[in-house]
Amino acid sequence: MGILKVLFHVNEMERWDTALGNITNLIKDVGRDGVQIKLLANGPSVAAYSDAARLEAMKLLAADGTVFLACRNSLKKMCSGADVCLTEEALPPFIKVVPAGITEIIRSQGEGFAYVKP
Amino acid sequence: MGILKVLFHVNEMERWDTALGNITNLIKDVGRDGVQIKLLANGPSVAAYSDAARLEAMKLLAADGTVFLACRNSLKKMCSGADVCLTEEALPPFIKVVPAGITEIIRSQGEGFAYVKP
Amino acid sequence: MGILKVLFHVNEMERWDTALGNITNLIKDVGRDGVQIKLLANGPSVAAYSDAARLEAMKLLAADGTVFLACRNSLKKMCSGADVCLTEEALPPFIKVVPAGITEIIRSQGEGFAYVKP
Repeated sequence: MGILKVLFHVNEMERWDTALGNITNLIKDVGRDGVQIKLLANGPSVAAYSDAARLEAMKLLAADGTVFLACRNSLKKMCSGADVCLTEEALPPFIKVVPAGITEIIRSQGEGFAYVKP
Repeated sequence: MGILKVLFHVNEMERWDTALGNITNLIKDVGRDGVQIKLLANGPSVAAYSDAARLEAMKLLAADGTVFLACRNSLKKMCSGADVCLTEEALPPFIKVVPAGITEIIRSQGEGFAYVKP
Repeated sequence: MGILKVLFHVNEMERWDTALGNITNLIKDVGRDGVQIKLLANGPSVAAYSDAARLEAMKLLAADGTVFLACRNSLKKMCSGADVCLTEEALPPFIKVVPAGITEIIRSQGEGFAYVKP
C-alpha cells in the first residue's frame, strides 16, 4: 500500500513520552523511508517545545523525517498566561507553526494521513 | 479541497472545555461555511448536556452550525445511576440523540469526517 | 454503506472498561455481522491480557468476532520491567500479536477501518 502516512495528535504534556516512543517504534518497524510522520501539538502540550531534554529527542526524530508542528493559537494562549511564553522566533527550526492545529488535523486526514492519539 | 468535515469525540467531562475551544478556533480559522462540525458525546460526558453554563456556550456554536449529538445508551446508563437523570425530552432542541454513539463515529468517518479526540 | 469496520485503540489500563462497553453496545446496535471490530492494545494497557476477569469478557466478544491485538514492543517492554511479564506463548489463542501496534493502527485506517480512542 505504498508509503504510510500518519499524524500524531498531542494535546496534553503527559502524553509526549508515549508519542515520542510510538514514533521511535514506528520508524524501527517500517524504516524512515516507509512512513511520513507529522506530530501536531496543541493546547498546553506546546510547552514541551521549550523543554531542552524533550527537544533533544525530537531533534533526532526530525533528522529522520518527522515533522513537528505547533498550533499558533496555543502558543499565543500560553503567552497570555503567567508562567512561560514561547515565541515563534524562539522555536528550533525543525518546528513549524500552523495557524490552527485542529484545521491541520482535519486537512491531514483528508490527505490520507492516519490519525493517532497517543 | 472543498468544505472540511470533522467529528469531535468527547467521552470524559474534563475534555469538554478543550473540545469547545477547539471548535471555536476552528470556526475562527476557516469560517462557519468552511467546515461541517459534529460533536458526539458518549459515556459520562453526556452529563454536560444538563449543565447550564456549558449549554450556553454550545448554543452559540450550534447557531454557527455545529451539530451536538448525544448517545442514547449513555443517557440511559446515567439515568440508571443515582445522581442525575437527563431524559431525551429535557434536552435543548439543538442536541440530537443517536441510538449508539460509537456507530455514529464509525459511519461519520466512512462519510469523510475527520476524527478528533480533544 | 456495507459492513462497518473499526479499530479501537487502548493504550491505558483505565480505558479498558470503556472500550469493552463500547464494543458491546456497538454489536447490540448493528449486530455481529454488521461490523468488523479490532481492538489494538499497546503501552501499559497490554497488562490487561493477563487479567482473568477482563479476559473472560474479551473471550465473549472474541466469540462474536472481535479481534484482540497486542503490540509486541509493549509486551517486551513490560517484561523488561519488574512486575509482570506476559510472554506471547502465555496469551489466550484469541489474542494475536503484531510486531508494532502503531503500524497496525496506520495500516488499518488505510484499509478503511475507522479509528476510535475510547
